[in-house]
Amino acid sequence: MASVRRLRDVGEHAWIGRWITRLARWPGAASGGRVVVGPGDDAAAVRPGPHTLLLTTDALIEDVHFHRSWVTPAALGRRAFAVNASDLAAMGAVPRFALLALEAPPATPLATIDALARGFARAATRVGARLVGGNLAAGPHLALTATLVGEAPGRIVTRRGAQPGDLLYVTGAFGACGLAVRRLAEGRAGRLPEIPRRTPAGVLLARVASAMIDVSDGLLQDLGHVCRASGAAAEVELDRVPVAPACRQALGLGAGAFAAQAGEDYELLVAIPRRREAALLRLRRHLGCPITRIGRIVAGRPAVRVREQVGRPPHSARGGFDHFRR
Amino acid sequence: MASVRRLRDVGEHAWIGRWITRLARWPGAASGGRVVVGPGDDAAAVRPGPHTLLLTTDALIEDVHFHRSWVTPAALGRRAFAVNASDLAAMGAVPRFALLALEAPPATPLATIDALARGFARAATRVGARLVGGNLAAGPHLALTATLVGEAPGRIVTRRGAQPGDLLYVTGAFGACGLAVRRLAEGRAGRLPEIPRRTPAGVLLARVASAMIDVSDGLLQDLGHVCRASGAAAEVELDRVPVAPACRQALGLGAGAFAAQAGEDYELLVAIPRRREAALLRLRRHLGCPITRIGRIVAGRPAVRVREQVGRPPHSARGGFDHFRR
Repeated sequence: MASVRRLRDVGEHAWIGRWITRLARWPGAASGGRVVVGPGDDAAAVRPGPHTLLLTTDALIEDVHFHRSWVTPAALGRRAFAVNASDLAAMGAVPRFALLALEAPPATPLATIDALARGFARAATRVGARLVGGNLAAGPHLALTATLVGEAPGRIVTRRGAQPGDLLYVTGAFGACGLAVRRLAEGRAGRLPEIPRRTPAGVLLARVASAMIDVSDGLLQDLGHVCRASGAAAEVELDRVPVAPACRQALGLGAGAFAAQAGEDYELLVAIPRRREAALLRLRRHLGCPITRIGRIVAGRPAVRVREQVGRPPHSARGGFDHFRR
Repeated sequence: MASVRRLRDVGEHAWIGRWITRLARWPGAASGGRVVVGPGDDAAAVRPGPHTLLLTTDALIEDVHFHRSWVTPAALGRRAFAVNASDLAAMGAVPRFALLALEAPPATPLATIDALARGFARAATRVGARLVGGNLAAGPHLALTATLVGEAPGRIVTRRGAQPGDLLYVTGAFGACGLAVRRLAEGRAGRLPEIPRRTPAGVLLARVASAMIDVSDGLLQDLGHVCRASGAAAEVELDRVPVAPACRQALGLGAGAFAAQAGEDYELLVAIPRRREAALLRLRRHLGCPITRIGRIVAGRPAVRVREQVGRPPHSARGGFDHFRR
């Protein structure tokens, strides 16, 4: 049996050196005149454009955000890029430069680390961004901390601009990732679904939105963040929340409530002033994904109220995901 | 006995929320008109200046880079900033915006996390940079992955410009951290020394240097990186390497060899073309630290040769630090 080459067999510097050589050969890697110094030096150097720069960082930690059997190394690399790109999309920004800090046990097969870095770098290239730097360190488990620098070609949108009367829309559908996680946690075979690419939708929605957030902790919990930041309340009609087909099929009547509280769907949630709804509907076919109206912002202390069925009174919601309290 | 409040008692979002409130109150936090959106949204938004942007990321991982008894939480936060600021200094750049991704066990006392974040944020403020974002996630151990965005007010310097005939200079002195680590590993009481602030020196040295690197892996190993990147060899006179007083006192005759191979001193190593040596000596008193000539770049295949004493022939060196091979 051929022996598996592991990280400790080549060492940190040799692995990084090999990767830099590979990245330099990538089509497109040299074409971006804005990268003055790429990977392999103390820092990367890039030329800033005239636009506002957006900075975000997020981590995927083994046995917290994923188990190795849940996701292939390449998909994990793509995911580390995508969770950050999702944060940028939620501000109306496009990823430009990426840094990837890896933590891995010395016994990790080289093929795993390579596939992971390749998945990340390809996800960056696909949207016109560059992997310009990173870090590799020994650790007891696998962890990927990525940082993206993005640019907002137009308006940027925060969580804090929602006003009473604004309509609440979401992209895509909810519950697919939550269902997959539930099944995987039960020991069933499967993989985490890929994170949707909402960069084009984010940039377009930023033109008309008063507030926007990406849904990572769960729709109701992230809506709660918008309410707190904006100093307003929200009403959600559970019947309207778009549910991923697999989730609907598996959970039937309970699917809506599950989807509204499940995490990691990475769809966008936007507040749209009524006067801009016509403009939103004109943008609709350029977004690259469906959008659905699910509720509205109302006056009041920050809170999310859920109406389970039309005609029933709304009740307060508490849901979502917090790493330290489960 | 009063019970200790731990991270799991407040949760991720509450901790982040508290921190954002604190940061907003900090003197100077609001004065930087370049931060359009600070911490607490999906991403931070900043206005780029006209200068080249430098991007770098580095991690401090518990039981790999430090043990908790080796460093106070505040010093650990400062250290996470400083190791990245050192990378920027080695390119001639000044930190402007910082992101801190924290990984911590749920049982971590709140006071530890707070002191850590405060140490980081204060280190940033002290050099005119802003903590604009970050992440907090549960994990089996403490880990800090920081990303800095810096600006180069003038010329940037990489590792690859050294030419035969260039003189090699270093800032400060070597061996203090290596000695501390050796003593701590033997179970003796003590702390890791603070990382020197070489940002002003880096910016000034960038005016005259042909190549520059910060010494994190060990002087000889990092000089090896410069040689490989520049396609040249180097000769170091061991007698000339400035040794930290504590290291000299503890190790006597062996101190030079130890200091040249010990890691984590975070001093700068620069190659200076002979014709610019006079300019370097004029800058000297503005650097804020001593500089010492330790050797020179010579023609030949990339290698570092060490002359232990004047008159003795040089021999090839192999030293330094690689996380996966020890």
